[in-house]
Amino acid sequence: MINVALLGFGRIGQMHAENINKNKDLKLLYVYEKVDFLSKKAKKLYNCKIEKNYSKIFQDNNVDIIFISSPTNTHIKFIEEGMVYKKTIFCEKPLDLNISKNLKLLKKIKKNKPKIQLGFNRRYDPGHFSIKKDLSKNKIGRLEKIIITSRDPAPPKTSYLKSSGGIFRDMMIHDFDLCRMYLGKDEISEVYAVTSSFEKIYKKIKDHELAVVTMKSKKGVICVITNSRHCSFGYDQRVELFGKKGMLLSGNKEINSTELFNKNQSSSKKPFLNFFVDRYEDAHNIQLKELTALHKGTIKSRSTFEDGYVALKLANACYKSLRLKKTIKL
Amino acid sequence: MINVALLGFGRIGQMHAENINKNKDLKLLYVYEKVDFLSKKAKKLYNCKIEKNYSKIFQDNNVDIIFISSPTNTHIKFIEEGMVYKKTIFCEKPLDLNISKNLKLLKKIKKNKPKIQLGFNRRYDPGHFSIKKDLSKNKIGRLEKIIITSRDPAPPKTSYLKSSGGIFRDMMIHDFDLCRMYLGKDEISEVYAVTSSFEKIYKKIKDHELAVVTMKSKKGVICVITNSRHCSFGYDQRVELFGKKGMLLSGNKEINSTELFNKNQSSSKKPFLNFFVDRYEDAHNIQLKELTALHKGTIKSRSTFEDGYVALKLANACYKSLRLKKTIKL
Amino acid sequence: MINVALLGFGRIGQMHAENINKNKDLKLLYVYEKVDFLSKKAKKLYNCKIEKNYSKIFQDNNVDIIFISSPTNTHIKFIEEGMVYKKTIFCEKPLDLNISKNLKLLKKIKKNKPKIQLGFNRRYDPGHFSIKKDLSKNKIGRLEKIIITSRDPAPPKTSYLKSSGGIFRDMMIHDFDLCRMYLGKDEISEVYAVTSSFEKIYKKIKDHELAVVTMKSKKGVICVITNSRHCSFGYDQRVELFGKKGMLLSGNKEINSTELFNKNQSSSKKPFLNFFVDRYEDAHNIQLKELTALHKGTIKSRSTFEDGYVALKLANACYKSLRLKKTIKL
Amino acid sequence: MINVALLGFGRIGQMHAENINKNKDLKLLYVYEKVDFLSKKAKKLYNCKIEKNYSKIFQDNNVDIIFISSPTNTHIKFIEEGMVYKKTIFCEKPLDLNISKNLKLLKKIKKNKPKIQLGFNRRYDPGHFSIKKDLSKNKIGRLEKIIITSRDPAPPKTSYLKSSGGIFRDMMIHDFDLCRMYLGKDEISEVYAVTSSFEKIYKKIKDHELAVVTMKSKKGVICVITNSRHCSFGYDQRVELFGKKGMLLSGNKEINSTELFNKNQSSSKKPFLNFFVDRYEDAHNIQLKELTALHKGTIKSRSTFEDGYVALKLANACYKSLRLKKTIKL
Repeated sequence: MINVALLGFGRIGQMHAENINKNKDLKLLYVYEKVDFLSKKAKKLYNCKIEKNYSKIFQDNNVDIIFISSPTNTHIKFIEEGMVYKKTIFCEKPLDLNISKNLKLLKKIKKNKPKIQLGFNRRYDPGHFSIKKDLSKNKIGRLEKIIITSRDPAPPKTSYLKSSGGIFRDMMIHDFDLCRMYLGKDEISEVYAVTSSFEKIYKKIKDHELAVVTMKSKKGVICVITNSRHCSFGYDQRVELFGKKGMLLSGNKEINSTELFNKNQSSSKKPFLNFFVDRYEDAHNIQLKELTALHKGTIKSRSTFEDGYVALKLANACYKSLRLKKTIKL
Repeated sequence: MINVALLGFGRIGQMHAENINKNKDLKLLYVYEKVDFLSKKAKKLYNCKIEKNYSKIFQDNNVDIIFISSPTNTHIKFIEEGMVYKKTIFCEKPLDLNISKNLKLLKKIKKNKPKIQLGFNRRYDPGHFSIKKDLSKNKIGRLEKIIITSRDPAPPKTSYLKSSGGIFRDMMIHDFDLCRMYLGKDEISEVYAVTSSFEKIYKKIKDHELAVVTMKSKKGVICVITNSRHCSFGYDQRVELFGKKGMLLSGNKEINSTELFNKNQSSSKKPFLNFFVDRYEDAHNIQLKELTALHKGTIKSRSTFEDGYVALKLANACYKSLRLKKTIKL
Repeated sequence: MINVALLGFGRIGQMHAENINKNKDLKLLYVYEKVDFLSKKAKKLYNCKIEKNYSKIFQDNNVDIIFISSPTNTHIKFIEEGMVYKKTIFCEKPLDLNISKNLKLLKKIKKNKPKIQLGFNRRYDPGHFSIKKDLSKNKIGRLEKIIITSRDPAPPKTSYLKSSGGIFRDMMIHDFDLCRMYLGKDEISEVYAVTSSFEKIYKKIKDHELAVVTMKSKKGVICVITNSRHCSFGYDQRVELFGKKGMLLSGNKEINSTELFNKNQSSSKKPFLNFFVDRYEDAHNIQLKELTALHKGTIKSRSTFEDGYVALKLANACYKSLRLKKTIKL
Repeated sequence: MINVALLGFGRIGQMHAENINKNKDLKLLYVYEKVDFLSKKAKKLYNCKIEKNYSKIFQDNNVDIIFISSPTNTHIKFIEEGMVYKKTIFCEKPLDLNISKNLKLLKKIKKNKPKIQLGFNRRYDPGHFSIKKDLSKNKIGRLEKIIITSRDPAPPKTSYLKSSGGIFRDMMIHDFDLCRMYLGKDEISEVYAVTSSFEKIYKKIKDHELAVVTMKSKKGVICVITNSRHCSFGYDQRVELFGKKGMLLSGNKEINSTELFNKNQSSSKKPFLNFFVDRYEDAHNIQLKELTALHKGTIKSRSTFEDGYVALKLANACYKSLRLKKTIKL
């Protein structure tokens, strides 16, 4: 049995706890959570140890994996501790919003080579990953364009939005990373961003409702990312890879596989899955499986700290592009 | 220019007239139609000769093609005349409802070998024919099952239904023929039919609203045909060929290629085409083109008199099966 | 915790064991399995009690649920024992192949009203059940036709086929039951069956490779069931409900939601799921959840002993129809 | 009969000639074409008058409609002549590449109000237009995003590309216009362009293989246009309208409605139509019909000279954006 300490029992932490609990190879040993009613909830649900002093957790030799889903500004600290104590580390995205702190940590990580997996769940989605494999098998020839549509069913709470780092850092970060997964060794060399907001709240909190980014890689691949904070028909998360010889799509998941035909319509399907826990259930299970394998040393990490760092740099470049209304070179 | 004489200017005859008129190789020379207001309509629309004595039409050496869309009980007479005068003949389905008369004619036809094309338009439908070609290319291996769904948007007028010969002869006849197209040299050896009617009118006129027929060929291919006199979402006419290595479908045609997504549904398409003139527009054009080529002697007929005869025999076997509630051997 | 005793640890029993083990409300207390290497496997995997004397299991007050996946000819005995000891009972389909034994048991069951759930997993499939709900909501008006396509990716082992009771009892039994689910209180009144076999093995073991059944209900609903023991593109299990106002489909599940476009094809999807454990994963989880609720008395059973009995009667009628080559009235 | 004079019998002119010839209300009276073998071809095919002095055509009172498909730099001259002689005018896109000349003409047109229809065929496509109607019916609520994918099966000849005005003026001009059709009175206020080329020829002739443009309207609607000069699977021309309450798609047209299933794939469709004459056959017929109605004065033009002018301005803004690597305000 591999013992896990979960740091942070908020919305996303609770989902991870449930997945860890269901996983046969993992045992949820500790939960670290400052908010009392949350730590009590964790205790009740999983009968795990509740520890308010995180140092003790890191010092405990029984802990194999540190699972970081605490607030963004704690990520660097916990990763560093994890490195010191030779733990296998999972860390939710995004990394600390201060890019230079991440750069420092990146250098240490390159030196110390900890086992670390970032929370870019879409890399583990069977569909999104399947078209990467088909791309590698040359099914569409030379890659020329990547087009990602990524719309959430509904915006997070305003309180979250205020401190999330904004649409490019809390939401599009997944899409930057996904582009990079498909690009492989080819790197993004320029970025341009445009946004729009219809609901007034977004201007008030200096965030954006819609965002579109166009990027270009060194080899000339054009990437287009389209984000929306809302989508009436559920999670709309599609990837389109266009190549010289063809196109690969990774599509959405409907609630079930039924269709209605009547005088007004044909082949009318159910809306898409509306909850990210359902939409990415398979991805989360695969990710946990790979985290276990990473801990055992049998595979490399599919989503590294450097991936998190570069995605954040791209998000920052988007803000610069928005401000200057021009192409930003990287 | 190839001259056409159209016999019968009813609903279906009018559609043929329009298609003949649009075809660059054909000229609509005569219309033979006993009903005055219809023959006047023909005159007005196409400025063709109106002839009430059909013998004169057959005797006119300028007439190349005889196009028969007159009432069913005139078909045999007109085909025989056409043979005598060496015309190229098109004849609408079904043939005369008296099977023994058709058998006599079949013998003459086998001897005289006239150029004749039957009005089995579905054989000419690009989709339905495309899967026949794919079947021949061995794309699904050995053929094991043929499943045809064939639903009309709405029933014909009751007056037509009363004299049409019934659902097996006026409607399913197309599906019998389509099965035979896919079966090629393999022959249907047994038939079983079941019907049902929900609207009262059908019992009153001794017809059926729904019909399902299962057939088996000599080689063991099972055919299932499903008919309905109504379909709220338009023409629902699909073919499914199931084989050892795969399956081929020939599907429906929506009004246009648009889709609607909202909180209740995703990928909701428009209903299917609702009018057979639209649904089989391509088929009718191809059929006319082949009729021209048949006249010129460059191709063989895709739908022969014998095809019409065998389809009618299958329809008759279905009525026998209904009556006896058992399998009918052919 | 609800304690489960699993009787039979064959292919299907092993799947149930895994699902029971994953379920949070259930504990796999006993496995009863005569074959040694299988009972050892159960012990190793689940650390449960292995008991070769089934009476002890029924007598153990700690056992709440009896889960029967032992050979078909043991089903009646175990259900009766379960009734005596007031256990909640799950029983795999089909019931005993001797219909009169089942009739006797049915009478006892009607009197004693045990909590019993039959293994008709398709009733619990979210898609198949969803269209039942939409039918009840009158989305397609009066039901007129039910068309079920049900093809397994590959046949079971010949050894299984020899004693399975044949395609109507081991495979189409699910489709009979599914038809009955959609028909509700309307009953099937007549049946006709046709079969075909291309591979020689089927004739040798007196089974069939393909089977098509047409049935008619008292109210006039026509049901068509199409079975195949093989299907190159995975599980092909579709339901089509046709009504006066529209049509409902419950479709298949592809391996993932990706598509390939190239010069030969567009929108090419992955094959369907190939393994029933994957295809019906959701159904099995829902079924276990309802079994728990049934045990607690909060719901009624969605699939009763009577459902199993009637489905078997329909299967038997099909064999009679095959023999006599005619419609069988029920 | 309405008499048409066709100016220019190149590739596109020949298609128009064929459509005019098939149209029952129109007669192809004149063809004006300087290239001898082309004018001879026109004479042979349509038995129309061939006139090398265009003035005589404009002076002929029998000519009702002037159909301009001659080289781009003759468009202004012919439109002006048409206005002088009160002809109904059709003019192919793009207008003269010199924007200031068009501006001058625009002023005259606003004053003289000739009957003029521009060759923006996509406005007339039943699918693309259908979602405009659905948008007006408020089916997706407030419009927030327009995403157009527009890929040609293969690039035009290099000789054409050299003088075409480039990808934004010869190809994306359709997409600018389509965006404007959906935006209605809302106007595009900013533009950003990025391009890429993999094949060397494009750099040599200073054109681009791929182009992506993001635009923003005054009301905040974001438009994304994706162009490619090649597409292995045929014409890929899709429109996606995203709104507060839903999404509308206008999709592609496959060669036929058939699908193949085998061990490697399911629901594999035929490639998209590969030839613009086929892809936009319906659009061209509707456009001619409306041209006739415009001539008769029963409708307004769906695609005006001003539409052509504004689309060209947007194309020019894209070149500026490319050069300066920044957002261009309009």
